[in-house]
Amino acid sequence: MNAYGTTIFAHLFGLLALILLLVWLLHYREGIEYDSDDPFRVFNVHPFMMFFGFIFLVGQAILTYQTVPGTYETQKIVHLTLHLIAIILGIVGLCAVFKFHDMMNWADVDSLHSWIGIGTFCLFGLQWLLGLAFMLQGSTQSRAAMAPWHVAGGRALFFMAICAALTGLMERYTSLKQPPQGETHLINFTGLAILLFGVFVDMTVGLTRYS
Amino acid sequence: MNAYGTTIFAHLFGLLALILLLVWLLHYREGIEYDSDDPFRVFNVHPFMMFFGFIFLVGQAILTYQTVPGTYETQKIVHLTLHLIAIILGIVGLCAVFKFHDMMNWADVDSLHSWIGIGTFCLFGLQWLLGLAFMLQGSTQSRAAMAPWHVAGGRALFFMAICAALTGLMERYTSLKQPPQGETHLINFTGLAILLFGVFVDMTVGLTRYS
Repeated sequence: MNAYGTTIFAHLFGLLALILLLVWLLHYREGIEYDSDDPFRVFNVHPFMMFFGFIFLVGQAILTYQTVPGTYETQKIVHLTLHLIAIILGIVGLCAVFKFHDMMNWADVDSLHSWIGIGTFCLFGLQWLLGLAFMLQGSTQSRAAMAPWHVAGGRALFFMAICAALTGLMERYTSLKQPPQGETHLINFTGLAILLFGVFVDMTVGLTRYS
Repeated sequence: MNAYGTTIFAHLFGLLALILLLVWLLHYREGIEYDSDDPFRVFNVHPFMMFFGFIFLVGQAILTYQTVPGTYETQKIVHLTLHLIAIILGIVGLCAVFKFHDMMNWADVDSLHSWIGIGTFCLFGLQWLLGLAFMLQGSTQSRAAMAPWHVAGGRALFFMAICAALTGLMERYTSLKQPPQGETHLINFTGLAILLFGVFVDMTVGLTRYS
């Protein structure tokens, strides 16, 4: 197995996580709708957008250099564009949870999950802007000096986004108190699939950089 | 800043996390004691041992190649020994939570936190044994072929251990329902310090491997 092997596993676990998340939100929970009077349907936009819109697309953006044929310049444009779409969809997901808190009259940004999530998202925006600035303005030399930091920072932020997702699942799970056994296991398997998606994306970068 | 800069940040956040965790467990919570009649004093052995005994020492073991002077062979022995101590202390921490569940008559290994934690710990033991086997038996060639996998696997497991810690904090926090504001913030800052410890240890490895 090489970096292409880990890419395949990354895709498998990413798709698995997406399917399990949809089964959970659509079958066991209330469904997904931004313009609903049921606050929980609004809330469910948040996990869906933060995983599928943000984390899944960011993972795809990271894997661009393995999966997209074409020149390095093309790959860079895809990498950058996927990240931009991920950030926009992530903002929709964040708006959903603020709207939910509003509907419930709950305080915002209270838990460890929200601190990690908001912090990661802001740093992510900064990382994207820095990447764009270096692409447009940097000299070949400054870009080469920046590259290891861009990679290390990006991997760290992706890792933090996975931590945000897992603490979020854990918070929702614990707040459900005693969900039926089937739902408990579904949530656990969803979390594991998200974690393994993160692990295999990260390993792909590590193994590619190494060789 | 280079890899040594990130090492310093790793140490700072590791120590900060340890101090915050102790303030939480000793001041806000019931204290730490394995042989206690108070199940919560027994439980508190678990977060303390899993962070200080396991994650903190594993982080130190990973940083060995930056922080321990001497030959590569010496660093390898320190790396291996610190991991062994971490695994032993981690087992104590795991026993504590099983003892707590016994005292409370609660089910074991039910939550996402426990699934991630147990899975990571088992794979960690396997990784350690494989590392030892290759050190003792492997040819120079097979060791060189194994090295990127050992590094990528080790980083993934360290990342998973941090996820286990954060989901654990999140579970305990949510189960406390309405802890006083001060305690809430303390738990959040502890979680962030653990996360940043993980990030800087991982960045150190990434930046060293890169150069």
